[in-house]
Amino acid sequence: RCHHRSPAMLDVPFLPFCAFLGALGLLCVAMVGTWCQHWRGGFSLDGSSRTFNWHPVLMVTGLVVLYGAAALVYRIPNTWSGPKLPWKVLHGSLALGAFVLTVLGLVAVFCFHNSQGTPNMYSLHSWMGLATVLLFSCQWAAGFGAFLLPWAPTWLRALYKPIHVFFGSTILMLSVASCVSGINEKLFFSLKNGTMAYKLLPAEAVFANTLGLLILIFGVLVVAALARPSWKRPDSDSPDSRQVQEALGG
Amino acid sequence: RCHHRSPAMLDVPFLPFCAFLGALGLLCVAMVGTWCQHWRGGFSLDGSSRTFNWHPVLMVTGLVVLYGAAALVYRIPNTWSGPKLPWKVLHGSLALGAFVLTVLGLVAVFCFHNSQGTPNMYSLHSWMGLATVLLFSCQWAAGFGAFLLPWAPTWLRALYKPIHVFFGSTILMLSVASCVSGINEKLFFSLKNGTMAYKLLPAEAVFANTLGLLILIFGVLVVAALARPSWKRPDSDSPDSRQVQEALGG
Repeated sequence: RCHHRSPAMLDVPFLPFCAFLGALGLLCVAMVGTWCQHWRGGFSLDGSSRTFNWHPVLMVTGLVVLYGAAALVYRIPNTWSGPKLPWKVLHGSLALGAFVLTVLGLVAVFCFHNSQGTPNMYSLHSWMGLATVLLFSCQWAAGFGAFLLPWAPTWLRALYKPIHVFFGSTILMLSVASCVSGINEKLFFSLKNGTMAYKLLPAEAVFANTLGLLILIFGVLVVAALARPSWKRPDSDSPDSRQVQEALGG
Repeated sequence: RCHHRSPAMLDVPFLPFCAFLGALGLLCVAMVGTWCQHWRGGFSLDGSSRTFNWHPVLMVTGLVVLYGAAALVYRIPNTWSGPKLPWKVLHGSLALGAFVLTVLGLVAVFCFHNSQGTPNMYSLHSWMGLATVLLFSCQWAAGFGAFLLPWAPTWLRALYKPIHVFFGSTILMLSVASCVSGINEKLFFSLKNGTMAYKLLPAEAVFANTLGLLILIFGVLVVAALARPSWKRPDSDSPDSRQVQEALGG
């Protein structure tokens, strides 16, 4: 017996919700770009703070928005019937795209620190962020090995799948917490002068604080969408998991 | 048909997991107390930074650890049979205790700012933290009104319950993100002098960064425990939700 259905009155259709999430994600990307372009001097590859500016843009775009899109692929009802492989490839490709942007985002901040003589990896933001990226790399490699390589045994897929799903949401929560602590830290670094101090809440601070809250809302909504039972792919209809259930005696 | 059972090999018993979570929560409380006592000058009520020190201790204790304990009450198998009211009272009381500690934690930081002439509510940490506390106050009041007042109609309980459960996890994620950004910010404020700068990673920085990671792990594990289908209270066995199902035509 399944105990997890919400009352029908709260049922929201997935696709409009997803369109809203997409718009919110694009707004976050546009806002982090605007922040860096308009208030932080724009972008370059010269090792200055304009190189650093790639870091927030790439992290929000890759580790939050594109990652969220990758995570939601199996919630699209079209993926629930027919061959699973194209959707697996789409899920893996979006996640790989997110991972590449994330690594470039790390490169940007390490280049900036190295060219300024600032030590790397001392703040809690950096520890949490690097832990998130390391978990993401393990998640991608293990997902590729278990779900895309055709010779991965069925029992391994069945064993690993709930772990992959759990870390999928966990990594997104850690990404969002990393982004928020990073925006907070950057505003304390950047807004120091008399009339533009962070504590006087100039326009830049209001804008970037709002960006932080929107990233939080995006992350919470993606995790909620992933957890919603009625939006999950009905596993037992796929040949894969029928084999799994037989293998487990289910 | 219920699609959400994990393979049996991953089944973890709830109570040992809960004991581990309790130990981890106590470790977080001990560490935040040690940080403030040993490195930040201890505690007082004089409006100095020693008044501020109550803020992290009360927030980690109330908004993370005690809140987590309150959230997990209905996952204890003993609560699944017999009268529900005593468990409701326990859940509400633990949450109220968490809320009181949280409000005292806010009082500590506002007193500190006011006595130092520092503006309140400018950082992203403060916006996110206050949003979390406001959500928590709505959550407690709505939970009290819908689930503890005996005259609350059954349809209202059924309608509100999934919302209460969703915000239960969401508020904990926001609390954890707030704590982590606050620890990060406090270390940048406090560790500025030459040999003790944050970027040189002195012992205090390693200790408090580790505390931040442990708080993250605690939050992720509580949210995971709350989401785990096999640990949820089987609702349809309680008279409450039988009525609900009838009311909804289920």
